[in-house]
Amino acid sequence: MTDGLTHFNEEGRARMVDVSGKKDTHREAIATGTVYMKPGTLKRIEEGEIAKGDVLAVAQVAGVMGAKKTPDLIPMCHPLLITSVDIRFKIFPAGEDQIAAIEVIGTAKTSGQTGVEMEAITAVSVAALTIYDMCKAIDKGISFGKIGLLRKSGGKSGVYTRSEPIP
Amino acid sequence: MTDGLTHFNEEGRARMVDVSGKKDTHREAIATGTVYMKPGTLKRIEEGEIAKGDVLAVAQVAGVMGAKKTPDLIPMCHPLLITSVDIRFKIFPAGEDQIAAIEVIGTAKTSGQTGVEMEAITAVSVAALTIYDMCKAIDKGISFGKIGLLRKSGGKSGVYTRSEPIP
Amino acid sequence: MTDGLTHFNEEGRARMVDVSGKKDTHREAIATGTVYMKPGTLKRIEEGEIAKGDVLAVAQVAGVMGAKKTPDLIPMCHPLLITSVDIRFKIFPAGEDQIAAIEVIGTAKTSGQTGVEMEAITAVSVAALTIYDMCKAIDKGISFGKIGLLRKSGGKSGVYTRSEPIP
Amino acid sequence: MTDGLTHFNEEGRARMVDVSGKKDTHREAIATGTVYMKPGTLKRIEEGEIAKGDVLAVAQVAGVMGAKKTPDLIPMCHPLLITSVDIRFKIFPAGEDQIAAIEVIGTAKTSGQTGVEMEAITAVSVAALTIYDMCKAIDKGISFGKIGLLRKSGGKSGVYTRSEPIP
Amino acid sequence: MTDGLTHFNEEGRARMVDVSGKKDTHREAIATGTVYMKPGTLKRIEEGEIAKGDVLAVAQVAGVMGAKKTPDLIPMCHPLLITSVDIRFKIFPAGEDQIAAIEVIGTAKTSGQTGVEMEAITAVSVAALTIYDMCKAIDKGISFGKIGLLRKSGGKSGVYTRSEPIP
Amino acid sequence: MTDGLTHFNEEGRARMVDVSGKKDTHREAIATGTVYMKPGTLKRIEEGEIAKGDVLAVAQVAGVMGAKKTPDLIPMCHPLLITSVDIRFKIFPAGEDQIAAIEVIGTAKTSGQTGVEMEAITAVSVAALTIYDMCKAIDKGISFGKIGLLRKSGGKSGVYTRSEPIP
Repeated sequence: MTDGLTHFNEEGRARMVDVSGKKDTHREAIATGTVYMKPGTLKRIEEGEIAKGDVLAVAQVAGVMGAKKTPDLIPMCHPLLITSVDIRFKIFPAGEDQIAAIEVIGTAKTSGQTGVEMEAITAVSVAALTIYDMCKAIDKGISFGKIGLLRKSGGKSGVYTRSEPIP
Repeated sequence: MTDGLTHFNEEGRARMVDVSGKKDTHREAIATGTVYMKPGTLKRIEEGEIAKGDVLAVAQVAGVMGAKKTPDLIPMCHPLLITSVDIRFKIFPAGEDQIAAIEVIGTAKTSGQTGVEMEAITAVSVAALTIYDMCKAIDKGISFGKIGLLRKSGGKSGVYTRSEPIP
Repeated sequence: MTDGLTHFNEEGRARMVDVSGKKDTHREAIATGTVYMKPGTLKRIEEGEIAKGDVLAVAQVAGVMGAKKTPDLIPMCHPLLITSVDIRFKIFPAGEDQIAAIEVIGTAKTSGQTGVEMEAITAVSVAALTIYDMCKAIDKGISFGKIGLLRKSGGKSGVYTRSEPIP
Repeated sequence: MTDGLTHFNEEGRARMVDVSGKKDTHREAIATGTVYMKPGTLKRIEEGEIAKGDVLAVAQVAGVMGAKKTPDLIPMCHPLLITSVDIRFKIFPAGEDQIAAIEVIGTAKTSGQTGVEMEAITAVSVAALTIYDMCKAIDKGISFGKIGLLRKSGGKSGVYTRSEPIP
Repeated sequence: MTDGLTHFNEEGRARMVDVSGKKDTHREAIATGTVYMKPGTLKRIEEGEIAKGDVLAVAQVAGVMGAKKTPDLIPMCHPLLITSVDIRFKIFPAGEDQIAAIEVIGTAKTSGQTGVEMEAITAVSVAALTIYDMCKAIDKGISFGKIGLLRKSGGKSGVYTRSEPIP
Repeated sequence: MTDGLTHFNEEGRARMVDVSGKKDTHREAIATGTVYMKPGTLKRIEEGEIAKGDVLAVAQVAGVMGAKKTPDLIPMCHPLLITSVDIRFKIFPAGEDQIAAIEVIGTAKTSGQTGVEMEAITAVSVAALTIYDMCKAIDKGISFGKIGLLRKSGGKSGVYTRSEPIP
């Protein structure tokens, strides 16, 4: 049985599924991801931000540009015209576990025939990769994860809001 | 004090740091990441694989191509000539928590003036994004994480092997 | 007289012709191309497919991604939003001439102001280039050709179906 | 048995093969392809050329730029630094079969660890696609083919010169 | 007060502003820029043009392709579907100041939710960069400037026509 | 006579000239360009900068990323591996002419067979385009110009330092 896994054609290989019959509707998606680092790394980022050098500013630009590259990165993803992308950050100072964190929240919108989940999640991933790249010289153990969809609206399947936590 | 955070210039803004003085050496990096899904989603992927339709085959191609796009995605990342990229998968059937998982392991090599960590981590991220994209129609709660470097070698800083687990 | 060759402006140089006045209609195009190889090369591809290593799976992904790159490759080609791409293969074992062949058939759809012929033909060309690349180590004489449009529909000029064979 | 088809890893999936151990040598490749059209289409191209509007000038630029995009188009293709690309055309007026033709000859050079065959063949393919695109409005039956390698030199496998004709 | 500078979000960082509520209208923009060179350089370009070698033909192709890359180059720029791009040149032989010039005029059109100013200006910039690149071997002092918008129409803000000269 | 204008082949069309015989040397280039705007626009940019929203931060990221796209934008430009890019800004408050200005200075380095002038000039152009894009909503008359090379070193032709002003 293959219904559901609609990226495969009859021969069992991949294709870009046909969305010709879908309606143009307003669509929106919000995704999240978190970068984990040493407390000292977060301190450096925050100090840099005050002094105009700004890891998060670069990550934000990278995330917005990454959202636009989504169909170029993900093979079976449909091209669409993004009408809005926004990247925000939440800072989590280290607790007893000595792990500091920055949550990246990405929002994308479009008016089109397919959803913008992948754009929102790609924006978050590229922003996280950029934070990683800019800090890896001082923190080789830096990592990121908990990347997933928080909410989406628009399209035939309606509103989705994540209820369970991301593993 | 700004030493260490070498992506910033004197005005505190971002730049691509100067690696002109670095030597061409053989460099290698191995990265990891994990996609979490419902047990039924993993079952579908595995069945598809047998029937020639292959989520992992598409993810693998996407990961290799993503590695080549690294300097185009990450603003301050130097371009380099990758000499090898390999993506492997490990399947983890669901335990009591009812969460199945696929670990993505990416290896990249180069002979150049800068390391290939970002290429390996980008390969893993793009492969994970692709698995996500191909399964999201049947599993809206799918997510991925635990993305980080396992090992790197080559260059002035020598061999790094991750000791602590990825949060 | 310059009518017909509409890519040229008054000075005789190239431009992207104005399609502002055209209507958004559903458009579809089917293209074909054939890769020629030694019988032993085809045998290897087929064995690889059974054993999960799959030249055609990679070519299929490349063809779909290539279709999305069409306006980036072909200078005067308009950007459009593809709504579907599908790549199929037909195997032709060698006859007396000892030439085996794989036909690549590419289908592309859109709802837009310009046709998707170039997307379908680019998909076929990139899939053929990929088969070539993956087999060239064992078959230096591999080649491809007979690339052309089989059918198109949608738009002012209506349905076209190829009647004559491709030279 | 998998030797020869070196793009596959142990699990039978695709990878970018390791060329880390290969030497930088001067490498060169010459490829060919032919566009077939109505005699009237060729006449239009030639008249345009005289009057400064120049299908072949655009195709030539597209071919050179296409060569630079090779590793972005072909999944398992290594990135390399092209040191030269040249595209030439030979005009073949129609004979009794009423088929006119333009042969596209592409030459690419590099000093690197992998060959430039794919760059030369991609250059030819993109130039052919461009001629097709610019003439399709007046000649829906236009097609192209006989794309293959004429000659390559450099690297461990030495000089290859095509002896048999392209099917 | 932040109104007007709409690319910034509440935290003061950059975002791609939301145009979801804007209407699809026909939009057009005309931009200009000028390349300055030695009289002998212009003479060479003109001679080359007659002899079919054509700096301006390459610049024209580059400008059209550059227009399509606008959202990939400019971080906060929305993607849109260009329906027309045209590049024209005006030759200005040197006067007493011994400075020859080529004015580049770029026109872009779209039917969409955002304007095409950036596409027209990017087209002009990339055409100027290309003229620069092709002539720099014989004229190291070549430069370009006076890049700005001449006219735009469509969208809520209506028609704009430049009145003051470009500095 | 065609010597000097080395981008043309014997048929008078464009090619990527052969640099195979050139030596890898350390090369560096510094370019300049200036964005002109209303005094009020500059004031807004400066206030934004203080409040963490930073037109120049986005322009700087865009300039660095633009430098990496140079061979993708400029048809006959050779690909090379940039080892450093830096973008700086100088603020010029308005004088009596009521024109404020921001000078963009871009530096690029490489170790390769061709110069990095085009990378430095492209970095400056893309940074200027980005400033333009981010301010055009409040200043439709914004423009940029005086783009040229200040200095280059490395390679056979040695050091060049601009003596004359840019027109």
